[in-house]
Amino acid sequence: MRVGILGGGQLARMLALAGYPLGLDFTVLEPAQDACAGPLTQHLRAEYTDAEALQALAGEADCITYEFENVPAESVTRLDRQVHVYPPPHALAAARDRFLEKTLFNQLEIETAPFADVQDLDSLRAAVEQVGLPAVLKTRTLGYDGKGQAVIREEGELEKAWESIGAVPAILEGFVEFEREVSLVSVRSREGEVAFYPLARNHHSEGILRRSLSLDGDPAQQLAEQYAQRMLERLDYVGVLAIEFFQIGHHLLANEMAPRVHNSGHWTIEGAVTSQFENHLRAILGLPLGDTSSTGHAAMVNLIGELPDTRELLRLPGAHLHLYGKAPRAGRKIGHVTLVEEDRRILQVKLQRLEELVHGRGGESRS
Amino acid sequence: MRVGILGGGQLARMLALAGYPLGLDFTVLEPAQDACAGPLTQHLRAEYTDAEALQALAGEADCITYEFENVPAESVTRLDRQVHVYPPPHALAAARDRFLEKTLFNQLEIETAPFADVQDLDSLRAAVEQVGLPAVLKTRTLGYDGKGQAVIREEGELEKAWESIGAVPAILEGFVEFEREVSLVSVRSREGEVAFYPLARNHHSEGILRRSLSLDGDPAQQLAEQYAQRMLERLDYVGVLAIEFFQIGHHLLANEMAPRVHNSGHWTIEGAVTSQFENHLRAILGLPLGDTSSTGHAAMVNLIGELPDTRELLRLPGAHLHLYGKAPRAGRKIGHVTLVEEDRRILQVKLQRLEELVHGRGGESRS
Repeated sequence: MRVGILGGGQLARMLALAGYPLGLDFTVLEPAQDACAGPLTQHLRAEYTDAEALQALAGEADCITYEFENVPAESVTRLDRQVHVYPPPHALAAARDRFLEKTLFNQLEIETAPFADVQDLDSLRAAVEQVGLPAVLKTRTLGYDGKGQAVIREEGELEKAWESIGAVPAILEGFVEFEREVSLVSVRSREGEVAFYPLARNHHSEGILRRSLSLDGDPAQQLAEQYAQRMLERLDYVGVLAIEFFQIGHHLLANEMAPRVHNSGHWTIEGAVTSQFENHLRAILGLPLGDTSSTGHAAMVNLIGELPDTRELLRLPGAHLHLYGKAPRAGRKIGHVTLVEEDRRILQVKLQRLEELVHGRGGESRS
Repeated sequence: MRVGILGGGQLARMLALAGYPLGLDFTVLEPAQDACAGPLTQHLRAEYTDAEALQALAGEADCITYEFENVPAESVTRLDRQVHVYPPPHALAAARDRFLEKTLFNQLEIETAPFADVQDLDSLRAAVEQVGLPAVLKTRTLGYDGKGQAVIREEGELEKAWESIGAVPAILEGFVEFEREVSLVSVRSREGEVAFYPLARNHHSEGILRRSLSLDGDPAQQLAEQYAQRMLERLDYVGVLAIEFFQIGHHLLANEMAPRVHNSGHWTIEGAVTSQFENHLRAILGLPLGDTSSTGHAAMVNLIGELPDTRELLRLPGAHLHLYGKAPRAGRKIGHVTLVEEDRRILQVKLQRLEELVHGRGGESRS
């Protein structure tokens, strides 16, 4: 059985690592020569819109998935005519456009921050009237890791913000003074089986995820699962779906969803009985889902921009290093490290040491 | 950093799966086109004695290891002149010849069954005088999974046994009425750091390992570690070393050692904080060793000859499937399944169910 993946980055790499033990083989379609999934898969090197490459991929793969939501819609549609593509293309369409995504959340009675559609400067002014300030202007599509976003604090900044995101269709979102950021990784199989991982508490900085902590038995788990269940059913979803929430009191405001394995679920490789990567593959192949229970309290810290002293990281007892084989570059995710401990206090002590090693000092974004 | 591996079977495959997260790349030298490590490594397809292939491997690998002890000694010697080869060639030489191996055990005051060198029919007769009957005649080199062995119960069987193993240099070993078979997986790094995994209790049938159970805090652990420590130091060893013992009362009789990752250590992938595969790589690259503590009670069951219904296996909560991508064939190891549980009684219940699924019935080789 061969799985085709659109994109050959670290998510494809970790899907392949999880999939070989299931007896699967992998082909990635990815234009970059140094694709980090390349060394451990068949690498089809072409643009995502290349007709011959798509034909080749559809011909050799039994099932196709993708590792990023900005994959061209027409490529997915073309593939879907010939071979199973999961998550389903209509879920991708809903998730890749921030306005459609938030509209769908609200239709399903899932709370969000106030938001409004922005097509030009005039509609941006109307949106500010509706949503209020401060607010965040975000491109409807193609943004990630804080790119394609501009914070607007006062009316005089409208034009500058509009230009800074490239004057493209956008969404204005009310600024949320949240208490916590949490995310739920859920999975639904071709057979309709559904499972949820424990919530993760996430810490972002400069728009990039820095750290996730697994939350076993958290009071917000039930509401998050209800919301995810609605979305999974509405979309007749297949695969892993991650939803990020802002938490204010007992309220969860859906921020965005990702129709794929997600950075805030990387802790599941060691911290859950079955990883999100294995369960995504099980789901899209119609296999029974694996146990999503946690194996302890887990913390995941991203390695961003530059590589710390890996020898020191490996010296930390129980630290699981995951390098992606990518060249270091400012703001680039090049790996992550996971800790899993039975005792949450021991986890906190080790996490502090880990973050000192990663950031070169203690406490950059600790809570 | 690129690791070269002589052999491209399941051990190479699992080394690669453990090594990519450390940021490593892999080249395997393996003559078989359908080498199961092939799809996830650079596959150098040539005989192990091919001079150009060895030259190419030495040229591109920063460090070389091997996945089986019957790799030609001259190839290892040739590689060792150009690049680090671990475990060291003299350890390979000691482990690949049953007579040298057992002699070394005894030199280190590690108990073994009685044994004698056999060069021809005359020396076989002398060996029977010395060792007694019943006894097992084994080729000095190249045997594995019960191949190259013949049990001798009475004098009249000598000639037949001698012919059946191919009339090659051999060793006669006294038959041991053991109570348990256990094995210790140990690891020593280039820096001299040493670590031991919990003992595994092994169950063989027809000379092939069927099942291993991890033994946390077993009374025999200390003696096994003492024996392994002596061997690691004597050989100035680097990498994973597995030693199989027969246990009779408080005595451990060393049966054989493997200078490589070992089937009885496969449970460490999920059942220990750091797997034997990752620790072998850390050891040969001079990195700090990872924690060898167990994460629970583990059981590993080999999939031999034919593939059971994998959908049913995956339905068993907490079952970790490991397929090697090999075509089923009688007597061939094509995968394994691991269970890890906090409660040993729950493990036993699940193991029984697992073995029913694997063997098509309950209890084939249960204890």
